[in-house]
Amino acid sequence: MRDIPATMRALVLHAYDLEGYDSLTLEERRTPRPARGEVLVRMTASPINPADIAFLHGLYGAKKPLPVVPGVEGCGVVVAVGGGWMARRLLGKRVACAAGNGDGAWAEYMVAPALQCAPLPARVSDEQGAMSIVNPYTAWAQLAIAQQLRMRAIIQTTAAGALGRMVIRLARRRGVQVINIVRRDTQVKALQAIGATYILNSEAPDFDQQLRTLSHQLDARLAFDSLAGAMTGRLLAAMPPRARVVVYGGLSMEPIQAIPGDVIFDQRSIEGFYLAHWVARQRLLTLLSMQRELRRLSEVTHTEVQLRAPLAAGQRAIATYEAQMSAGKALLMPGMAPD
Amino acid sequence: MRDIPATMRALVLHAYDLEGYDSLTLEERRTPRPARGEVLVRMTASPINPADIAFLHGLYGAKKPLPVVPGVEGCGVVVAVGGGWMARRLLGKRVACAAGNGDGAWAEYMVAPALQCAPLPARVSDEQGAMSIVNPYTAWAQLAIAQQLRMRAIIQTTAAGALGRMVIRLARRRGVQVINIVRRDTQVKALQAIGATYILNSEAPDFDQQLRTLSHQLDARLAFDSLAGAMTGRLLAAMPPRARVVVYGGLSMEPIQAIPGDVIFDQRSIEGFYLAHWVARQRLLTLLSMQRELRRLSEVTHTEVQLRAPLAAGQRAIATYEAQMSAGKALLMPGMAPD
Repeated sequence: MRDIPATMRALVLHAYDLEGYDSLTLEERRTPRPARGEVLVRMTASPINPADIAFLHGLYGAKKPLPVVPGVEGCGVVVAVGGGWMARRLLGKRVACAAGNGDGAWAEYMVAPALQCAPLPARVSDEQGAMSIVNPYTAWAQLAIAQQLRMRAIIQTTAAGALGRMVIRLARRRGVQVINIVRRDTQVKALQAIGATYILNSEAPDFDQQLRTLSHQLDARLAFDSLAGAMTGRLLAAMPPRARVVVYGGLSMEPIQAIPGDVIFDQRSIEGFYLAHWVARQRLLTLLSMQRELRRLSEVTHTEVQLRAPLAAGQRAIATYEAQMSAGKALLMPGMAPD
Repeated sequence: MRDIPATMRALVLHAYDLEGYDSLTLEERRTPRPARGEVLVRMTASPINPADIAFLHGLYGAKKPLPVVPGVEGCGVVVAVGGGWMARRLLGKRVACAAGNGDGAWAEYMVAPALQCAPLPARVSDEQGAMSIVNPYTAWAQLAIAQQLRMRAIIQTTAAGALGRMVIRLARRRGVQVINIVRRDTQVKALQAIGATYILNSEAPDFDQQLRTLSHQLDARLAFDSLAGAMTGRLLAAMPPRARVVVYGGLSMEPIQAIPGDVIFDQRSIEGFYLAHWVARQRLLTLLSMQRELRRLSEVTHTEVQLRAPLAAGQRAIATYEAQMSAGKALLMPGMAPD
């Protein structure tokens, strides 16, 4: 641990707040020390993911004890290890890493379980490396679920976001059709530009009828829904019998709503998807083959960046990203000098 | 078809109406004629089921073309057959019968598919025979689903209704625990009287906490919900991870509501149950063994009757039943003289 400062700067959340994230403040904290099986990563970049925003609002799966450093993933260099061969082999390497049960990635340093770190090939930038877990794994998992259920076509909401674009590109490689739902005409154009075939604007007056026609035509019986609220029920009502709507986000900030008859009479169901649980249920071989494939597919997982900000500008960066998620990711760069 | 009058009296629905059933009128109609594989039943009794009420409101699975005679099941004597050995063997027999795709049971005569008629043993009364399909099959199917999923405990709403009581008795024979949810203290007492162990009143201020404690204690991960609305989400939120809420009715008349996080993070799901589809998915041997077992279990399927009414008093009978479903079934008796 020599050459490592005793304290570091970190964004610290003090209260889960449905209305905002005013309690998120930049603080000087003791630099954490890795235990056995863990590594200490000097962070270079960490994205603001929708999952992070849900976490700030107290809406994410495992609420952590407060105060806590948010941030589910990032990229950095392993500068110390806590012992164990898994950790030791990472020393000095540039890695992508996912946060464990404690403090997260929005800090100058993060302790991460060695098992949740992957060395990055030289051709992958820090920025792309910082976003190489949550969205790519989710896109891969969604296509794996689709193929396990022998679906030839799927539906996704917030299709113009970083994950949505990844799903579009990965599905094309897999020969799976995607019905993409967006909320603005500019997003329709953006997805046409990357070659998406089926794009529906949910604000269009005939959206529900269009979705019904198209989902029946393509036999799309699996939807991945990041919005929840009324959209879950609209998907369910439009889709063919035996459809499943898999909710994996609550961006609408509204409760799931659905007409009972749509669930009762046609064997439709509402299920959930949570990446951490999906990963925990997979065999190690599946995960290794996923990592290998994703490493090859950097053009599939490439993510646009709309904003880079130092930790000191964290709150502002979150607000900018939240206002238009489909414009690209926002990255927190702990090494960047404040304005 | 000799000895069969050319016309009959029937309750006829002219409009699906979310607000009521004013368009249901007693009419003189041509007596229907059975086609091949069908029988003509002179009806003696037919219950008013929650499914019938949903049908009147236009909320039931298959909306039939109007005008139509409602009524999903009943009891009567087969007075004519349309040909085919399945139909011929029923001639002259007293049967329980379920309606086909056309007109239903709330009439002096009904045409039913021979496959949906079962001869009644002499010891079964017309009244009990008239209710021997919808509820007993549903109770049997719910326990079959529970056992297929290896559930040691289930949860049910509207537990004080006819179906709820059947489930309690059948579950006891199967060694499956039931957490019974009711909405009134008098219903708590009624279920205690028939020996139910776990009874919760959803109007109690600590209901959600009680349900959480009990469902975790008994590992109850399967709920059958006839209400929908907010109850579906309350069940889901209280139950242990990997819980399924199976919605089979919408008695609350409200959309299903659930918090996205309750679906996303703990592999909980919302599914549907529709008896007709369940039956269609079973092997014939399963259905035969179900019928055989239910015939033996007349004490399990016995249903209280709160009201008998001639067809002419149909509207009033529905309103009375709707006002307090757990007081017993209401039966329409086509042979009964009007007041």
